[in-house]
Amino acid sequence: DIKRYEHGTQSADKGQYKHYMLKEIFEQPGVIQATLNGRVGKGEINTQLFGDSAQQLMDSVQAVQIIACGTSYHAGMVARYWIEELAGIPCQVEIASEYRYRKTITLPNTLFVTISQSGETADTLAALRVAKERGALASLAICNVPGSSLVRESDLCLMTQAGPEIGVASTKAFTTQLSALMVLTLSLAKTRGLDSTLEAELTDALTTLPAKVEEVLALSQRVEQLATHFADKQHSLFLGRGALYPIALEGALKLKEISYIHAEAYPAGELKHGPLALVDSEMPVITVAPGNELLEKLKSNMQEVRARGGELYVFADQHAGIEDQEGYHILHLPKIHPLLEPILYTVPLQLLSYYVAVIRGTDVDQPRNLAKSVTVE
Amino acid sequence: DIKRYEHGTQSADKGQYKHYMLKEIFEQPGVIQATLNGRVGKGEINTQLFGDSAQQLMDSVQAVQIIACGTSYHAGMVARYWIEELAGIPCQVEIASEYRYRKTITLPNTLFVTISQSGETADTLAALRVAKERGALASLAICNVPGSSLVRESDLCLMTQAGPEIGVASTKAFTTQLSALMVLTLSLAKTRGLDSTLEAELTDALTTLPAKVEEVLALSQRVEQLATHFADKQHSLFLGRGALYPIALEGALKLKEISYIHAEAYPAGELKHGPLALVDSEMPVITVAPGNELLEKLKSNMQEVRARGGELYVFADQHAGIEDQEGYHILHLPKIHPLLEPILYTVPLQLLSYYVAVIRGTDVDQPRNLAKSVTVE
Repeated sequence: DIKRYEHGTQSADKGQYKHYMLKEIFEQPGVIQATLNGRVGKGEINTQLFGDSAQQLMDSVQAVQIIACGTSYHAGMVARYWIEELAGIPCQVEIASEYRYRKTITLPNTLFVTISQSGETADTLAALRVAKERGALASLAICNVPGSSLVRESDLCLMTQAGPEIGVASTKAFTTQLSALMVLTLSLAKTRGLDSTLEAELTDALTTLPAKVEEVLALSQRVEQLATHFADKQHSLFLGRGALYPIALEGALKLKEISYIHAEAYPAGELKHGPLALVDSEMPVITVAPGNELLEKLKSNMQEVRARGGELYVFADQHAGIEDQEGYHILHLPKIHPLLEPILYTVPLQLLSYYVAVIRGTDVDQPRNLAKSVTVE
Repeated sequence: DIKRYEHGTQSADKGQYKHYMLKEIFEQPGVIQATLNGRVGKGEINTQLFGDSAQQLMDSVQAVQIIACGTSYHAGMVARYWIEELAGIPCQVEIASEYRYRKTITLPNTLFVTISQSGETADTLAALRVAKERGALASLAICNVPGSSLVRESDLCLMTQAGPEIGVASTKAFTTQLSALMVLTLSLAKTRGLDSTLEAELTDALTTLPAKVEEVLALSQRVEQLATHFADKQHSLFLGRGALYPIALEGALKLKEISYIHAEAYPAGELKHGPLALVDSEMPVITVAPGNELLEKLKSNMQEVRARGGELYVFADQHAGIEDQEGYHILHLPKIHPLLEPILYTVPLQLLSYYVAVIRGTDVDQPRNLAKSVTVE
């Protein structure tokens, strides 16, 4: 029963966990499952996400514009890679506080997608109102709170089933947003000629995703051990390529938010265009390095980091062929379909920032200067 | 004679300057002028940038895709704001190392614009080759080196007239790229109904731009004094909104590259979505705050920084109404047309990073780990 995640009494206390954030990280297998329920079937995706009348609207979508802030913006960035690759529709992503104040050009038949956990993020709401004036075909909210302003003001909504998120640093809201965005992508793709073999591959992979997330959670002790290396660090650099670049951004944001370490992310190809100047033994470099087609490029980036004395923390799958060696600290993750890597690789980065914050003794669930929902501009 | 900037013997030595970088910063009025020469007339823009036959091509452009790396990417980000606002054409900007490896959707009649000082940037060149396969209408290189690979492989080119740039951290190449991109924007806009009053306003403003840059250079002693505050800092945060956000990115990149201070930029509206957690008295915050329509929002961001003990370094014009006070360090810049602010506001940020690096005793012209042109992937 999905509703239990939203209203169940168990959500209001931390149970066995020291912090809400840790509890919420460990809830991810269940809430991802709840978000996929009824939307992903055996070997196929449900194209009737919004009912018959809306389906006609969805079929006429020719472009997607995603708007969000903070962590939700990172989810949108991942979706851009997915939507252009699978659905073949041009997709743009922009930060709400930028989109709303500039003159933008809306492509014909644009589906305007907003993403917000609370549904009350001020800039995202304002951008939605602006988008309506700019002539979007329809608006769709990806949101965790039924009845929120964003849901009420959008034509369509795709609810995440994360349940209440208490920790200020968003974790399960993010991975359920990604899950919902993959559902949306597949639904858009299916009526635009998605290969049925690929559809079956991806829906099967989605079905196994909660169990894979469990496998990653079982690695938490190893992540906790890696976290000790960050106890006295003031900087770190996160690198990723492709759809893992936004995951590097999200990993850096988590570390920033709760451990107050100045963490910054770059697409790995940009390393030599500037940030390499910062790399030394005091700046650990975290790479999100599944064994996909971009791995060889990323390995070369890692060698550059090593040549400058940087310590590498590598989140990779067993097939990546990267082993522990001088200056390399590897966490091996289970293999998953390459298109779902952004969801799976988020989890160890959440755990890393959590354990680093605990070691440093910060207020994990209520980091300084930040509020849960940014409802003012 | 424009050619003198490219081949003149005076370019090969530092002359009165301690470093090439400083010399190149001070050359900007001249090289911006050289880049505008023959392209911007009295009250109007030259729409015949590429000759008669190319004009027909330019008239059929319906979308612009910009690709670049590093500093050139920041120039492309600014151009996006300009092109959508003035020419009313959808414009996307992407990092070359991302664009080339993912499946992208090319809009009909896309002008593919690459930006590179050297014209030999490996990822940008590779992206150009990929774009041709993806069916761009035409390719246009914005480049500083005649005869470079990028120029040879592109259908059209718009040369910057920066002359040889020796300092690894790009300065005059960036502001001449911006100048060329504004010329391109106005040329695209003019045949798409640009209001002639606005055209005259902007061409007049471009005519005065070199003199305004001189005025900013005359403030270098004040910037040098501000730089002393950064002597022992390890972090800084750059904030901007709209087309000044990419300038904040560029300011942060300069500081990173040559002073090895971990500087990061954010669009100011994102401050509350994470980076505010980092702000304390050890993280100076630089804001690029001309007195434009976004100023009130930015002022509210600055108050948040002050409330957390952050020291503010504010680059503002006299009309911004921001005065020196506890925790605020203001540099007043001359007033310029809002659309040209990105070019003018770059200059004090270049000076700041230069003086900070000199104070810290780094190798300004040859920062550690970096090469002038990234000709390998």
